[in-house]
Amino acid sequence: MKGPFDGVLVIDLTHVLNGPFGTQNLCDLGARVIKIEKPGHGDDTRTYGPYIDGKSLYYSFINRGKESIVLDLKNNDDRELFFNMVKKADVLTENFKPTTMKKLGLSYETLAKINPRLIYASSSGFGHTGPMSQSAAYDTIAQAMSGIMLETGSPNDPPIRVGTSISDLCAGIYMFSAIASALYAREKTGLGTFIDIAMFDSTLAFLEHGFMAYVATGKAPERIGSRHPYMAPFDIYRTKDKHISICCGNDDIFVKLCHALGLADLLEDERFKTNNDRVANQAVLKAMMEEKLQEKKQDDWLNILLNVDIPVAPILDIAQALNLPQVAARNMLINAGGVKMPGNPIKMSAYPDPTIRDGAPELNQHGDQLRQEFKSKA
Amino acid sequence: MKGPFDGVLVIDLTHVLNGPFGTQNLCDLGARVIKIEKPGHGDDTRTYGPYIDGKSLYYSFINRGKESIVLDLKNNDDRELFFNMVKKADVLTENFKPTTMKKLGLSYETLAKINPRLIYASSSGFGHTGPMSQSAAYDTIAQAMSGIMLETGSPNDPPIRVGTSISDLCAGIYMFSAIASALYAREKTGLGTFIDIAMFDSTLAFLEHGFMAYVATGKAPERIGSRHPYMAPFDIYRTKDKHISICCGNDDIFVKLCHALGLADLLEDERFKTNNDRVANQAVLKAMMEEKLQEKKQDDWLNILLNVDIPVAPILDIAQALNLPQVAARNMLINAGGVKMPGNPIKMSAYPDPTIRDGAPELNQHGDQLRQEFKSKA
Repeated sequence: MKGPFDGVLVIDLTHVLNGPFGTQNLCDLGARVIKIEKPGHGDDTRTYGPYIDGKSLYYSFINRGKESIVLDLKNNDDRELFFNMVKKADVLTENFKPTTMKKLGLSYETLAKINPRLIYASSSGFGHTGPMSQSAAYDTIAQAMSGIMLETGSPNDPPIRVGTSISDLCAGIYMFSAIASALYAREKTGLGTFIDIAMFDSTLAFLEHGFMAYVATGKAPERIGSRHPYMAPFDIYRTKDKHISICCGNDDIFVKLCHALGLADLLEDERFKTNNDRVANQAVLKAMMEEKLQEKKQDDWLNILLNVDIPVAPILDIAQALNLPQVAARNMLINAGGVKMPGNPIKMSAYPDPTIRDGAPELNQHGDQLRQEFKSKA
Repeated sequence: MKGPFDGVLVIDLTHVLNGPFGTQNLCDLGARVIKIEKPGHGDDTRTYGPYIDGKSLYYSFINRGKESIVLDLKNNDDRELFFNMVKKADVLTENFKPTTMKKLGLSYETLAKINPRLIYASSSGFGHTGPMSQSAAYDTIAQAMSGIMLETGSPNDPPIRVGTSISDLCAGIYMFSAIASALYAREKTGLGTFIDIAMFDSTLAFLEHGFMAYVATGKAPERIGSRHPYMAPFDIYRTKDKHISICCGNDDIFVKLCHALGLADLLEDERFKTNNDRVANQAVLKAMMEEKLQEKKQDDWLNILLNVDIPVAPILDIAQALNLPQVAARNMLINAGGVKMPGNPIKMSAYPDPTIRDGAPELNQHGDQLRQEFKSKA
């Protein structure tokens, strides 16, 4: 078996980032994913840089291993082919605005009549219900409206977008997990379902301590920079050259840390007795630690602190991160169609985790053979 | 059916954030989740604030609806009970350091002999393989080493942690989706699997455009603040009072935007002809837009721009976000055991999405009845 979804057929109408990221996971785990692209240039991400040998990395990263066919869903012949695909499909995915498929006469209700086992998954900005269901949404808008931008950064800084499209990606991964869940349940019930995922909802589900603070106080919490809300010292700290991250998860680590830093007198300081004391006095504690930490460089401190098993790390850039031997050991930098890209983070002993995978398709690369395969038997 | 996982039994050894967040999703979708807690104070998050009526919100948010039993896995009677549970379980989850379960004599290999259908999911900092498998990891360490902290923020700022525990949460959701996938496959194969999820891998899978830029150039990309890497104007902008987010996804929106801002002369400017031109000249374009935007307040600009269908949004704090009518309409703020908390972002037409759910258990709340249920038949 190629993966847990070997034999599963996905008709994939998704485009840009959130939907394709979700269906990529199905494909990585063995499903057959047929990507239906619009006439013209196909998925908009084909026009996004960066490029290698004329191939968009943006498109390649999230469409590897899929098949591509161009269909005009307003054309009768193409619609017939599409309906033939739906009849045989296990899963249909789309991330249009919530009314688009209905206007095309392709709502879940319509398609479920043709195939009651169909799992129809939709991912949109704000979902199919509620007063904002028709609002335009990009990742940045979902980030801005969910509160996550005002949860990120230091108190006096302007709001900052999380440096990755977290709202798109969260929606994609929730869509994927919902599909996997529905496929399992269908083995018991014999029936499909409509799945309605929103970027906005998915981001709310990821707010964590800020959401808790709001529930506890009724107010938005202050932004806290890089520190932990409930543990200290647990932050990033300046050394002589670069920052390091130090994570004191318990009192024992704090004792070891104070000795390793040459700050044993802190252990006698009433302000730092318990974790709660340290959180209450984290600013002064951080200042005292940074005064000491600025005596040596990052590398020296890493050696000293790792040597006594203190959870500590350098702040790496992406190039440094991807060059760690751990990345290769975990097969997290693979080759798909000649392009390096992220591996599959789902490692399962029962299924392969190939280092070389099929690349992303050219536009309509599989058009002819798919038209043959799904044509009507007259 | 309570959800797609009705009838699925999960033995949950996870603690703190990443594992419990993953198994919470199984529970929300109908699985029975028995949480095994260590003697003493149980899961460490029971000692984390904020509190309401003596209940930790941190614990409550990610353990609602689960059952709790305290077991000492070094005690022979408790081990026997544990093995009885494993015999009947569909899924076992843990997020210990990779060697912990082996030292307890409870490795996947051992447990699979008792129950070959068992799906055993482990989530750890760096995974079970590779040179860093034994490294201590907290969310902040995984964020620091994955590159995401240096992908977030403006070029000259110090590194900043994403304001939510994204590495913990990503690992949790990948663990959940891997389990759902393995449950589906088991219906075909009859066999379980070992699942090995790492916070580090999961964060790499979420790096998006920074990862692409590295593959294209071999170098870490510059941080870009809140702007989009490949579209402009697509950023957050200062108005007279607060920031707003404006997302020009295509040329048509740019034309409408220029007219709405009273900046029609920009349409004649060679520097802003195409999206690629605008990305190349985004700094000067932003400065020209902000000069204009500072003439009015956020609310006024939102009215003007939404009126002509430009994708635009205020930057909300968490309190403002959770008070949007959309949140209630989507059932994203529910009540579990008397505590408000995030709803389930997976909305499925075939399964209920209750607004009132069971709360998180007291420590060992279900201990007696679970000991009765799983005792050996002598």
